[in-house]
Amino acid sequence: MAACGFVAGCSPVSCFAESEYWHQRTSLFDLLPVGEDDIVFLGNSITDGGEFAELFGMPDIKNRGISSDVVGGVAKRLGQVLSGRPCKIFLLIGINDVSHGLSADEIASEYESLVERIRMESPTTRLYVQSVMPVNNDFRRYKNLVGREGVIPHLNRRLEDIATRHGAVYVDLWPALADAGTGKLRREFTNDGLHLTGKGYAAWVRLLKAYVEE
Amino acid sequence: MAACGFVAGCSPVSCFAESEYWHQRTSLFDLLPVGEDDIVFLGNSITDGGEFAELFGMPDIKNRGISSDVVGGVAKRLGQVLSGRPCKIFLLIGINDVSHGLSADEIASEYESLVERIRMESPTTRLYVQSVMPVNNDFRRYKNLVGREGVIPHLNRRLEDIATRHGAVYVDLWPALADAGTGKLRREFTNDGLHLTGKGYAAWVRLLKAYVEE
Repeated sequence: MAACGFVAGCSPVSCFAESEYWHQRTSLFDLLPVGEDDIVFLGNSITDGGEFAELFGMPDIKNRGISSDVVGGVAKRLGQVLSGRPCKIFLLIGINDVSHGLSADEIASEYESLVERIRMESPTTRLYVQSVMPVNNDFRRYKNLVGREGVIPHLNRRLEDIATRHGAVYVDLWPALADAGTGKLRREFTNDGLHLTGKGYAAWVRLLKAYVEE
Repeated sequence: MAACGFVAGCSPVSCFAESEYWHQRTSLFDLLPVGEDDIVFLGNSITDGGEFAELFGMPDIKNRGISSDVVGGVAKRLGQVLSGRPCKIFLLIGINDVSHGLSADEIASEYESLVERIRMESPTTRLYVQSVMPVNNDFRRYKNLVGREGVIPHLNRRLEDIATRHGAVYVDLWPALADAGTGKLRREFTNDGLHLTGKGYAAWVRLLKAYVEE
């Protein structure tokens, strides 16, 4: 039974960050303190589906992914992470905002507020702004992304600029995940054009390893 | 974007264990070895949504939950877990089978094969058969469970019998999670009548702690 329901009366866009699952996860995270030695993976389903402590062999890595989450959803739960002043945050968020029809500028504006808060409320945290991953609409699975592929590179240029201006590290995931010719998420890394299979997680982990361990 | 899609051409019942998400998770688990010191939490979304290594403060606890999974789905991926001869397995599976309309006897029959395989292929593993949790249909969220509440206690009697006959430990979760009067999942532990909020996970963890640490 997939946890994909939303609170009655909410439109998908305005309340995407208010799903039942979002509240299940955030109420759980409320019980799980983040500490100064922790490395937090913060994001949506792509983060949620990973087992990063195992993948990196580092028990201090904490998964703070929530399927379906958006930039505004992460903003609402940011205090849970920042209060612990974690060592590092790996942020990966934005593809669901693209799917909801927001422009790169709209997403980037919300994203910049997020980054500003992280820098201000936990200045000792090293922040890694990850590029939104490529998608592959050949799978025809996520219809709301069809025709919006072009938003992602535009958004990523904005994210790189935001990271640079706010003292964060920008991590471009495209060299590891995108087909060099088409710019699509490589077929061997996904089975729906958006989420990663094990091979996809392995490629992502290979790219991040130096940042996680530095 | 919730990962709740299924492979084209499959009916929900016959191929529930073949969702895109199921393959994403199992292909990830293929890369993550289970070892003899590990404690494996094996099940569906209720397991998937937990962060057990953090909740118990034990990095050797591995999450092998997959949202929407059924007894047959766990059977298909059991080799990933048993090949490592884990120290303990905490099994919680069956509510999605109930939701699909299977009888307690049908589910118990499949479940017993699962337990037999665990006992045979990894005899050193201590197996904890957890009762299927109570649900609360007052939330009216999971319509396929309405009218099927009665299957759960019947199934649980069968699970207790299976555990006893095969040298596994039966763990009755109802005293911790059910309202004593109504037998429903306590309202303060859920926001959809099926899945757990943080408080629900905390109650579950309190009950399991002695078994995890013994």
